Amino acid sequence: SSSTTPIKATLFPGDGIGPEIAESVKQVFTAADVAIEWDEHYVGTEVDPRTNSFLTWESLQSVLDNKVGLKGPMATPIGKGHRSLNLTLRKELNLYANVRPCYSLPGYKTRYDDVDLITIRENTEGEYSGLEHQVVKGVVESLKIITRKASMRVAEYAFLYAKTHGRKKVSAIHKANIMQKTDGLFLKCCDEVAAKYPEIEYEQVVIDNCCMMLVKNPALFDVLVMPNLYGDIISDLCAGLVGGLGLTPSCNIGEDGIALAEAVHGSAPDIAGKNLANPTALLLSGVMMLRHLKLNKQAEQIHSAIINTIAEGKYRTADLGGTSTTTDFTNAICDHL
Amino acid sequence: SSSTTPIKATLFPGDGIGPEIAESVKQVFTAADVAIEWDEHYVGTEVDPRTNSFLTWESLQSVLDNKVGLKGPMATPIGKGHRSLNLTLRKELNLYANVRPCYSLPGYKTRYDDVDLITIRENTEGEYSGLEHQVVKGVVESLKIITRKASMRVAEYAFLYAKTHGRKKVSAIHKANIMQKTDGLFLKCCDEVAAKYPEIEYEQVVIDNCCMMLVKNPALFDVLVMPNLYGDIISDLCAGLVGGLGLTPSCNIGEDGIALAEAVHGSAPDIAGKNLANPTALLLSGVMMLRHLKLNKQAEQIHSAIINTIAEGKYRTADLGGTSTTTDFTNAICDHL
Ligand SMILES: CC(C)[C@H](C(=O)O)[C@@H](O)C(=O)O
Ligand SMILES: CC(C)[C@H](C(=O)O)[C@@H](O)C(=O)O
Repeated sequence: SSSTTPIKATLFPGDGIGPEIAESVKQVFTAADVAIEWDEHYVGTEVDPRTNSFLTWESLQSVLDNKVGLKGPMATPIGKGHRSLNLTLRKELNLYANVRPCYSLPGYKTRYDDVDLITIRENTEGEYSGLEHQVVKGVVESLKIITRKASMRVAEYAFLYAKTHGRKKVSAIHKANIMQKTDGLFLKCCDEVAAKYPEIEYEQVVIDNCCMMLVKNPALFDVLVMPNLYGDIISDLCAGLVGGLGLTPSCNIGEDGIALAEAVHGSAPDIAGKNLANPTALLLSGVMMLRHLKLNKQAEQIHSAIINTIAEGKYRTADLGGTSTTTDFTNAICDHL
Repeated sequence: SSSTTPIKATLFPGDGIGPEIAESVKQVFTAADVAIEWDEHYVGTEVDPRTNSFLTWESLQSVLDNKVGLKGPMATPIGKGHRSLNLTLRKELNLYANVRPCYSLPGYKTRYDDVDLITIRENTEGEYSGLEHQVVKGVVESLKIITRKASMRVAEYAFLYAKTHGRKKVSAIHKANIMQKTDGLFLKCCDEVAAKYPEIEYEQVVIDNCCMMLVKNPALFDVLVMPNLYGDIISDLCAGLVGGLGLTPSCNIGEDGIALAEAVHGSAPDIAGKNLANPTALLLSGVMMLRHLKLNKQAEQIHSAIINTIAEGKYRTADLGGTSTTTDFTNAICDHL
């Protein structure tokens, strides 16, 4: 077993199937001898009795201290006026970029082969400003806010990502033919950053055309960077090309090197606690976290074990057409290590 | 040849490949003995020398008088501050619903079989309000406007369409988990109308999830109704499933029974005037116009002739992998009549 001092990482198992799939991650990380010490906190729809709040100060501070974490699905508290805890975390921790790699999993067949896309989503503003009001009865408006600061930040991140990951092209996705000022500013920032990376191909693509081209020929794209809502839409579309949110990881990037990896699927209350959930998205998110920590060897080992288990096809959870329990599938991955 | 008094219909051939594909429609309609008298007007990026404007009053009045028309692609005038002529027409003529059927064309293979979807897009407001401004330097905002009036109108249209076209389900697409007020109002209107159509199944689907499910399994959907931008995105995505905008028709519906059918692809300046354009989208839009006019027999005849020509595969334009000219393809359709 490893003798390195363990790295502390925050773990938010979350709601519904969250605890089961987080258990799977812990088991696989232990089997792979990863020197991580989990700093586990509950964030979810159950109120913390001490603070009467959904999200405690300790939970946030844990991420700020450890600078790295992994989160499972969190349901949105029921009742008017509650905002999604996923969003609250992104806002409170200033997680400005959401990175979602979507690639075909060898052995898991969809209509698309060889998909290999990275969506990078601005994660803090745009259509998610929360600014809305009724103008007069029957007339409501929402504000979409685009700032130079947030646009530059996510554009810089996207090009740096492309460069450090050996990617060839960045596509900036927009609807600036309609929203000339907001999406126009976003594009202008992307243009500016692109000029500093002459070795990376750069293009602007209108979102409607982008979605059409993605379903026709995803190989046309490489890294995609975009404002918040377009990122929400396109990252899910891309996940659909390779099998859905149960198979795709994500990682939220914040200032000062903070990274909070996240499974973006739902909490699946219908199957929660039944040992039926597919832990793949959270496991692959854990792999992204390890890569962020430069624990590349173990990241690759775990990644291969997951891919090989799915490709082998003997142990698959129900969502992938199999009959395995979460535990069986997790054990199979550990056996591959 | 037909002895009925011809019905007057406006024709805007538009820019780029517009005139060629409009020629194709005229030829096919003549071959099918359709009693249409075209009232042709130029609307496009060339300025009318008499009025010094892109869009003349006569052009608009023609649609208002005839109540029915067909339009080709129009480019957006170059230079700051010009808005898309497509949008200007929709706004000026109060074309509140954009209907885009997307179905697999027999004989034209894509990754998807048996797609049969209708997207119905609110066409006048939402993210297309044109209201945008700079708040302070580096901070810009766009307003998304949702009104009860426009939402009820498009929801009513969607359910009526579903009922009269033997459709089983309407899905209202939204992001009300984020834009609770704007998309919330849109949904509330859909709910209200749905209650009047108990025979039609109704569901609300979040746009990101909708896009993922559309690429995984489009058969889950039937009629989709949504605010403007989501309609823009999803209708293109759906077109992509069956081969792209060159193959999918659309029709804009206004008050007082106005219908302006429209090919939504671009004006393709690179191949304009070269007899290479595929007229299918405009032809199928013409078929939608005929159905609107209850000229169902001729609509079906022309529709079959188009489908059969493509299915036969002998005459296909370059975009479909063939080598035929627009003229060859059009002649082949006429031969099938
Ligand atoms: C749950 C929801 C608020 C969230 C979003 O819209 O960002 C989700 O779709 C995501 O992509 O993480
Ligand atoms: C050309 C553009 C302004 C237009 C739109 O955004 O509506 C187009 O994409 C469409 O769907 O007709």
